[in-house]
Amino acid sequence: MSGANEPKVPWSGRGNRFTDEEIDYIVEAMKTADPMTQGRYQAEFECNFAGFVEQKYAFAVTSGTAALQMAAALTRVGPGDDVIMPAHTFAASAIPFGQMGANLVWADIDPDTLVVTGDAIARVLTPKTKVIVVVHLYGLMVDMDPIMKLAKERGILVVEDCAQSLGATDDKDRQAGSIGDFGCYSFHTHKNMSTLGEGGMLTVRDDDLAAVVPGLRHNGMRGFDFAQDEYWKPAMSNVDFDWDNIWPYNFCMGEVQCAAGIVQLRRVNDMNAKRDQRARRFAEALSGFPELVFQHTPDGYHNIRYCLPARYDGTETDATRDDFMRRMAHHHQVKMVVQYYPLYRYPMFIKAGFGDADCPETDRFFDSMVSFPFHEWMPDDQFEYMLDATRETLDTLRRDAA
Amino acid sequence: MSGANEPKVPWSGRGNRFTDEEIDYIVEAMKTADPMTQGRYQAEFECNFAGFVEQKYAFAVTSGTAALQMAAALTRVGPGDDVIMPAHTFAASAIPFGQMGANLVWADIDPDTLVVTGDAIARVLTPKTKVIVVVHLYGLMVDMDPIMKLAKERGILVVEDCAQSLGATDDKDRQAGSIGDFGCYSFHTHKNMSTLGEGGMLTVRDDDLAAVVPGLRHNGMRGFDFAQDEYWKPAMSNVDFDWDNIWPYNFCMGEVQCAAGIVQLRRVNDMNAKRDQRARRFAEALSGFPELVFQHTPDGYHNIRYCLPARYDGTETDATRDDFMRRMAHHHQVKMVVQYYPLYRYPMFIKAGFGDADCPETDRFFDSMVSFPFHEWMPDDQFEYMLDATRETLDTLRRDAA
Repeated sequence: MSGANEPKVPWSGRGNRFTDEEIDYIVEAMKTADPMTQGRYQAEFECNFAGFVEQKYAFAVTSGTAALQMAAALTRVGPGDDVIMPAHTFAASAIPFGQMGANLVWADIDPDTLVVTGDAIARVLTPKTKVIVVVHLYGLMVDMDPIMKLAKERGILVVEDCAQSLGATDDKDRQAGSIGDFGCYSFHTHKNMSTLGEGGMLTVRDDDLAAVVPGLRHNGMRGFDFAQDEYWKPAMSNVDFDWDNIWPYNFCMGEVQCAAGIVQLRRVNDMNAKRDQRARRFAEALSGFPELVFQHTPDGYHNIRYCLPARYDGTETDATRDDFMRRMAHHHQVKMVVQYYPLYRYPMFIKAGFGDADCPETDRFFDSMVSFPFHEWMPDDQFEYMLDATRETLDTLRRDAA
Repeated sequence: MSGANEPKVPWSGRGNRFTDEEIDYIVEAMKTADPMTQGRYQAEFECNFAGFVEQKYAFAVTSGTAALQMAAALTRVGPGDDVIMPAHTFAASAIPFGQMGANLVWADIDPDTLVVTGDAIARVLTPKTKVIVVVHLYGLMVDMDPIMKLAKERGILVVEDCAQSLGATDDKDRQAGSIGDFGCYSFHTHKNMSTLGEGGMLTVRDDDLAAVVPGLRHNGMRGFDFAQDEYWKPAMSNVDFDWDNIWPYNFCMGEVQCAAGIVQLRRVNDMNAKRDQRARRFAEALSGFPELVFQHTPDGYHNIRYCLPARYDGTETDATRDDFMRRMAHHHQVKMVVQYYPLYRYPMFIKAGFGDADCPETDRFFDSMVSFPFHEWMPDDQFEYMLDATRETLDTLRRDAA
């Protein structure tokens, strides 16, 4: 990690940092937690989390992918069932449903909000649709009402992929994940809060489905259905699982990670607010440049700004998105990225038979998008440097075109 | 956790503790690791681990179950294939192979060593056998040579379940996990070393199989097969996976857990030695009581003593195993356990069609076994108290019989 090769504004491998108080709390768990897994920290984290996101049950797991895998298992989709989801998302939104043998159906995104819409879902709905996965991408919630209406009319289950949207709310002040049947959250280090690098949470509304989760999460382990005369008879615990053909996992999150989750959750609204303030400042400061079109946040929505993406519109300058990326990278040493490659273009999904899609906005946005470094702990001077570099780059591209 | 209700010798929820130096090292990772997952701590932990267990490749994962699930995926077993394994083990040894759709076939254990044998495996071998799972249970390695001979003759893959045997060696000084095709380790908090509560490691011998693991572990993510002119084109990274019909997972272990693994691994041989010394002292001190028959460690084997199990033989006193358990629990407040319920007796395996077995020793041992609390940090006076309590209990049961 020599300074010479490092960008002036890196794309950080961690989205946030821990305060000294947070570290003290986590170390205390490291020293005293007994048990070290599935204990009191997990119980507290899950209880606080369920309260925060306004959902009935919450279960800590090893990653957002694990949460989605548990949700996929709980929906019981399989061969012959359609699962609709946007292709403009991280691969983990789709993989667990492919793993279940379901048919993946891609819905387009809205070019302004960059998230999926009820209309786009309606266009690909079939009688075989069993599950809809909505992805609240980049920190912005999807407009859920039209989707829930479609789903309820047809008995379709709705999974909210909230990996990028913990704390986001819609124009009715509803939390991301509080509306569908399942909410899947990620505490991966890039996210707005983290549990020491990896981690996730599954929320569940239905009582019967929630009762299955502890066994699904931990190798089918559960208590017996009867009072044991001696605690060791017939065995210390039971392995049972009323869930035909679904085998359980081990997705338990250790107590030390749960302790990190407890303290980060207390602060996530503040961290989200800081991100939002910065994103607004960035977009406002660049409002004179129509070349950059930032994600549109509809009135009344709180966007928690997991990322700072924008569409690059080079029509007036003849410069391309790649010209912009190149100057930012090589002249200013700002490590921008381009995300998310439409899932139907990846070899893995093509080989699995899911290479077809009619998603013109998904293609168009990916091919013209840029994403600015946006970790929460970015120093102010670095942030201002990035803003100046962006202005300079856009000015230069204009001058070159003139 | 009030003292009044707590046993004098608890069955601890954590197998070991972290030293102050270890905590300092882990906290440093918490403060500075960037990235916070799949970074330098992972690389160092994996490199050190591969060296320690004398296997070519090592991959940190979220749990021993995850390691077994990856191994199961890599063997490519499926419907119509037999997988042989002992039923005297934790459920996770078997679940991943059931998940792949394979037919689970139970092999019996040796009544003295308590682990599976080549003879027992040979008795249930069929032309459909594709994988053998050996479980080095309680810290003792299985005699591998006869099993490897069977496997090599028939092109069978061998998975070593080393969840309970990190650092164990056989009479040729070979490490557990260094002999078969895959080694699966657990750092769950009960184990001889831990990574903050949960964690595991998969070791792989074959170059081609090892090349698949990073993608299998992380949502199919990999680099492109060609040099990218611009780092963002065609995308930041590829999602591909030359592994038909197997979908990837996210089993990544965060950097802070990897840091814990690095420091615990340095000390695991010392911790193992302490366990072994205590186990020997316990068995020797009770050598006058044929009622307790401890696990037999063959000459030249190093048993790392994950647990301290014994068969209770009540033939001379008319007292039963349950009489022994009861007096230890209620008179002496020693929280003993009984493990492992034969997997074919659990409802989950019965429902899945794997309720049949011809394993008389597995049944006999479970129905007569006891397991003493044996966490590494048990204070000496507690250990001596437990020894005295055991003597007193055995004496009392003899007197009652007389």
